[in-house]
Amino acid sequence: MNFIIKQNILMEQLNNAIKGVSNKNLIPILNCIKFELTKDGLYLLSTDNEMAIRTFLPKEKIEEIISLGEVVVSGRYIYEIVKKLPNEVITIEEVAGSKLFITTTNTEFNLNCNNANDFPNLELETKENPIVITEADFKAMVNQTSFASSLQESRPILTGINFLIRNSSIECTATDSYRLSKRKIDLKSTEEENNLIIPNRTLVELTKLLVEDENEMEMHIFTNKVIFRFDNIEFLTRLISGTFPDTEKLIPESFELELKVSYRDIFGAIDRASLLSSGDDKNTLLFELKNDVIKISSNIPEIGMVEEKIKVVDKKGDDLTISFSSKFMTDALRAINSEFVVLKFNGDIKPIIIVDPNNTLLTELIVPIRTY
Amino acid sequence: MNFIIKQNILMEQLNNAIKGVSNKNLIPILNCIKFELTKDGLYLLSTDNEMAIRTFLPKEKIEEIISLGEVVVSGRYIYEIVKKLPNEVITIEEVAGSKLFITTTNTEFNLNCNNANDFPNLELETKENPIVITEADFKAMVNQTSFASSLQESRPILTGINFLIRNSSIECTATDSYRLSKRKIDLKSTEEENNLIIPNRTLVELTKLLVEDENEMEMHIFTNKVIFRFDNIEFLTRLISGTFPDTEKLIPESFELELKVSYRDIFGAIDRASLLSSGDDKNTLLFELKNDVIKISSNIPEIGMVEEKIKVVDKKGDDLTISFSSKFMTDALRAINSEFVVLKFNGDIKPIIIVDPNNTLLTELIVPIRTY
Repeated sequence: MNFIIKQNILMEQLNNAIKGVSNKNLIPILNCIKFELTKDGLYLLSTDNEMAIRTFLPKEKIEEIISLGEVVVSGRYIYEIVKKLPNEVITIEEVAGSKLFITTTNTEFNLNCNNANDFPNLELETKENPIVITEADFKAMVNQTSFASSLQESRPILTGINFLIRNSSIECTATDSYRLSKRKIDLKSTEEENNLIIPNRTLVELTKLLVEDENEMEMHIFTNKVIFRFDNIEFLTRLISGTFPDTEKLIPESFELELKVSYRDIFGAIDRASLLSSGDDKNTLLFELKNDVIKISSNIPEIGMVEEKIKVVDKKGDDLTISFSSKFMTDALRAINSEFVVLKFNGDIKPIIIVDPNNTLLTELIVPIRTY
Repeated sequence: MNFIIKQNILMEQLNNAIKGVSNKNLIPILNCIKFELTKDGLYLLSTDNEMAIRTFLPKEKIEEIISLGEVVVSGRYIYEIVKKLPNEVITIEEVAGSKLFITTTNTEFNLNCNNANDFPNLELETKENPIVITEADFKAMVNQTSFASSLQESRPILTGINFLIRNSSIECTATDSYRLSKRKIDLKSTEEENNLIIPNRTLVELTKLLVEDENEMEMHIFTNKVIFRFDNIEFLTRLISGTFPDTEKLIPESFELELKVSYRDIFGAIDRASLLSSGDDKNTLLFELKNDVIKISSNIPEIGMVEEKIKVVDKKGDDLTISFSSKFMTDALRAINSEFVVLKFNGDIKPIIIVDPNNTLLTELIVPIRTY
């Protein structure tokens, strides 16, 4: 392998490939990036066994291809080296004895290479009829659900986001069993019917690669993996095996109380009140509705107390007193971010449902906290 | 104490006062800010025993003063609360039972107060003829020396910056005994002669408060403290007692070799070469001068090696091979930041001196590393 390339062009490609490199360092080859220089252009491959990335640079963007070949080299080092090189042309050449020479006018790096055959086969297949969705829609779907997924490895299924694909739509659901976030997207007509759990961690990495909002991306679903294709990038993620809990029955059809409030009012009130909610994980707030005023209060005995008042815009049902986690409510509200928000209750021990009144595609649920 | 103030105005003052609040939490009162509302305006005081800050807001900037008084309240809580309040007027009122009420239209915080008499007396005296210096000059002096001071509490003197004041100039010196940075500033005529050691940590905090570059600041020197006055702020720092090492004899008058090089060339070369310098603290680089070319090289056997070439602009003396820490050289070059830089040597075991050829006020010294 021997080619000449502009520093900024290689850097752009490395910026994507580096995201697939493992940080954990247990299997040395997974800390590497594989360079595959073919007659069509340059492929960079990286994987941490749970996900894999292959980026492609067409030959037109390479200054000169002198000889083809494959090289496997430390991802972190090649990334940092190219980043610090001046913005001029770089020669990248494999020489005898598994060495990679990276040279510019005044600089010569010489990196040890791994055996290209030891690099895992990424199995980047394609299907004939992938699902097609815009990058912007996909990003929104992940951002609006991801936070509700669990970090506890003890229940692996809940560390993923459920993708339920049917009737030409995707419904994404994440839950840590104390709260839930569900986001639906309508698709162009597709025959696909599927029910998968994708690790939250790989989805978050994937969204970092999505920059062209209006571009369409393809989603190729296989038994134990999904492959996304967009902007000269292929992104593979393993699936979590198992059955995601059936969350549909958790969201009731009817409610005893429905409240419409200004988003800004309730977000500000909860954000401030959380300053004086006790330091445990839950950060409990007390929520009291009386006539058309909500009082949100909290205290830490040794520090002080806080009381916030919010005027209700619209109310259907009777007064209620309930407690919930300020963190869960803040996370749910952040995902909604609209002018108004509707809170729906069935008494003080049943889940609270939070929605944007003008958007039925997103549903947030949080379980109240019993304080007695 | 009872007054009404705009949120953004109080926030601006708290942004300064919070910097004096201790993070260490050992003596509860040092986590507090003292409010002193006088007929002239509002003072906020904070201290961590090593430094102290008093900020002043003249009464014209306060919406309404209803009653004067003093209150001591948790610094972190009052700061976070005011930060999250909407930008409207806030009423701040002390009520019976050592409570502070902070109220806006829809929000009511109620914080426990400490006894105002328990707050330390800050002893913010003034002298008749302080030293006067611009904020920009003072900031430059600290930024260009601070990095060379020691972090090791075992030699407390080296954790400070030496201020040597004589002949209408200040000479600041910091050293960790492996490198040294010395910066001189000429003053308007002053009688003051002094030799002090100010803790590096408090100087760094002080520079964060300096925002009006062209403003002049006053420096009032006492036996065991210095008080700085600028922009309605008084800043007190304790001194480190003891005698700073005499560093003047460390910088020779004559050199066997002097090299002038492009700043960009040498900074880039060392920055890149440091990527492959071994992971210990020193990050040793090999520097070889042959004719008019410097070769800088380094390697980590299991990763690879790097070789950088720099053309010398001007050379007085003979070829030399020497080793030094890439980190120390990078820090020294960062402080200089000019078009050219001059490196001066007396053989391969004596300190290297680095200067800007057009600025005699700043001198950097680093001790070479013996590699044999």
